Amino acid sequence: MAIIVQKYGGSSVADTDKIMNVARRVVRTVQEGHQVVVVVSAQGKTTDSLIRQASTISSNPPKRELDMLLATGEQMSIALLAMAIDSLGQPVISLTGAQGGIMTDTQHTKARIREVDGERICSELSKGQVVIVAGFQGISNSNDITTLGRGGSDTTAVAVAAALKAEVCEIYTDVEGVYSADPRIVPDAVKLDVVDYDEMLELASLGAMVLQPRAVEVAAVYGVPIHVRSSFSKERGTMIKEVNLVEREVSVTGVAYDENCAKITLVGIPTDIGALHKVFSSLAAEGVNVDMIVQAGTSTPRADLTFTVTREELSTALSVIGSIQGDDSWRTVCDEDVAKVSIVGAGMMTNPGVAARMFAALSEEDIPVYVVSTSEIKVSCLVPRSRYQDAVKACHGKFELDLGN
Amino acid sequence: MAIIVQKYGGSSVADTDKIMNVARRVVRTVQEGHQVVVVVSAQGKTTDSLIRQASTISSNPPKRELDMLLATGEQMSIALLAMAIDSLGQPVISLTGAQGGIMTDTQHTKARIREVDGERICSELSKGQVVIVAGFQGISNSNDITTLGRGGSDTTAVAVAAALKAEVCEIYTDVEGVYSADPRIVPDAVKLDVVDYDEMLELASLGAMVLQPRAVEVAAVYGVPIHVRSSFSKERGTMIKEVNLVEREVSVTGVAYDENCAKITLVGIPTDIGALHKVFSSLAAEGVNVDMIVQAGTSTPRADLTFTVTREELSTALSVIGSIQGDDSWRTVCDEDVAKVSIVGAGMMTNPGVAARMFAALSEEDIPVYVVSTSEIKVSCLVPRSRYQDAVKACHGKFELDLGN
Repeated sequence: MAIIVQKYGGSSVADTDKIMNVARRVVRTVQEGHQVVVVVSAQGKTTDSLIRQASTISSNPPKRELDMLLATGEQMSIALLAMAIDSLGQPVISLTGAQGGIMTDTQHTKARIREVDGERICSELSKGQVVIVAGFQGISNSNDITTLGRGGSDTTAVAVAAALKAEVCEIYTDVEGVYSADPRIVPDAVKLDVVDYDEMLELASLGAMVLQPRAVEVAAVYGVPIHVRSSFSKERGTMIKEVNLVEREVSVTGVAYDENCAKITLVGIPTDIGALHKVFSSLAAEGVNVDMIVQAGTSTPRADLTFTVTREELSTALSVIGSIQGDDSWRTVCDEDVAKVSIVGAGMMTNPGVAARMFAALSEEDIPVYVVSTSEIKVSCLVPRSRYQDAVKACHGKFELDLGN
Repeated sequence: MAIIVQKYGGSSVADTDKIMNVARRVVRTVQEGHQVVVVVSAQGKTTDSLIRQASTISSNPPKRELDMLLATGEQMSIALLAMAIDSLGQPVISLTGAQGGIMTDTQHTKARIREVDGERICSELSKGQVVIVAGFQGISNSNDITTLGRGGSDTTAVAVAAALKAEVCEIYTDVEGVYSADPRIVPDAVKLDVVDYDEMLELASLGAMVLQPRAVEVAAVYGVPIHVRSSFSKERGTMIKEVNLVEREVSVTGVAYDENCAKITLVGIPTDIGALHKVFSSLAAEGVNVDMIVQAGTSTPRADLTFTVTREELSTALSVIGSIQGDDSWRTVCDEDVAKVSIVGAGMMTNPGVAARMFAALSEEDIPVYVVSTSEIKVSCLVPRSRYQDAVKACHGKFELDLGN
């Protein structure tokens, strides 16, 4: 009997009616002959409201205690969902992250799963029960409750699926699947039937926030097929799995964007290795994530170094840079009004001219490009924030993504 | 350094201001040179609202899942209180019932504490931290979350105090202590300075609901002194401890009442041992708690058997009795409009004539007495519910309890 892991997000369990809908879908899956493990997030806006409550008490609450507080959100939803499934006559048991064997490191509020000890889950499944596991949370080896950070329930679901060697990990969401672009920007964006792990990783980390990147990484490592689908319909969604590239006909799968960017340029920085190392190791030491990095300039021994950070981390980044500049003569320029638009496709690497086509699309719309970076499966351009929607539309049209993959 | 256990109820942590008040009191106790363990209940009406939420999903939710849900209430309050104490600069850590070593049996929604494993609490105390333990909840040996039933946080606090050999277990509440009678009924009721464990047990189980009876039992067994006091003042409250009866000057300590009574009379039941046994073992098998039992009647081999149950259990009790009656010829009479009024005092057993004085007080007010039962430290009378307040006042006056103990 195959094991299916189903993950339902907060909007899928936001109220009693929705919880009953989820319960019915779970019971239907059992009736189709599967063993079902359900991973569930906190209801609706519970997590936000708990964070708000904490902020009335302390502007800087200890992270361990924040995790203690936040973990109650999923504990409520697993209990309520268990009651709903039980009321349909289906044996069921709910497990907290700790009870479900979700072992993490000790990085409170952004812990990483080290291991899933599936013993209790398997033992409950073997009694004919549906097993509900709290998403987003785990337990450290010092027996403290941890949380995985926003969207962590996806990772819980995939890690559980990997540990149980599940047939598939179904991620239920309020959209029909993964689209070729954000349908709010591109009305003729199409739902993708299949997306490769690497593509999904780029799409996710570039702002197509259907799935947590970490969840896709874990799925890729363990070869867990993910089925992203709607909790409100029975339609097939998007399968995320290893794709045979030889048979791949299209080069670009989708267009992603990320509004949460700020650009920093260090004008006239020395080009020796030491300077670069100093800048980025200092940023890393303060936990600042750096994204696109380009260095340009012909006037060696000095050049212009440009990179992007998230907007929240801009002020930290600027103060780090100020602190390392010392007496050096370069200067810092920054721009918050930028956004990143990317085309993504595993077929891209064997298909020359893809980048050129993207630049053509942008230039036809008079959209300036500040920074370009490329990888084997994507091309990203930093554009003015005021133009990013036009850029997404232009790329989507240019690569004829409305025709499907 | 002496360990003090402080327990705060739901009304003491109902909002941010109140949580900060509790935090300041805890920090003050630390500054006075004590190691402090805090046991805390769910905020205000959280538990009721969780139960209501469950009831929208299922009229009969599995008890294990109800415990999973209810336990989130204390988990929230321990985290919030920890944040508050941390914000005052005092090192602190919160522990769920499971983390705090509160080991219970598996009777979900009314579990009993089997043992407190104080290892983690002691280890955190030794690091100079205040330790906050979630009240009301524990963990069974199958690693399932249990709750102790209403008022269970008192029991948690006393059990933790016993395990840690604490100097005192302070129970903070919204009243100043234990009174000689309910001040809402008897305006000149006085706060008692000292109450014996046995007296408190009678006062608690008779409706003076300041403390959970189970908590008093545990305190008596382990000799833990309990200090019942107000969270809103610095005044001393009531000490509950072993009292040297030889020095005891007063015979009656307080007057208690219980409105939640229903009387059942089996008229003309056979007086042989078999019949009595059958009635009460059948009631026990259905979990019906029987309180006052009297048998009267001269017409052997038949008599009238009267006893009381709680009003909620009346219908269950009547159906149990119906099912065992068979063809026997006795009949059942019941009365829901009754209440129990009791005088309690450890000095009573050495003091004859106390019962007579109580009957005099009631008769002077023309209050009929349906049933009387006595123990070494109390006399209880079942009276019409419409007259129970008059009865409390009459007894309080007769024994001059307004003069204090």
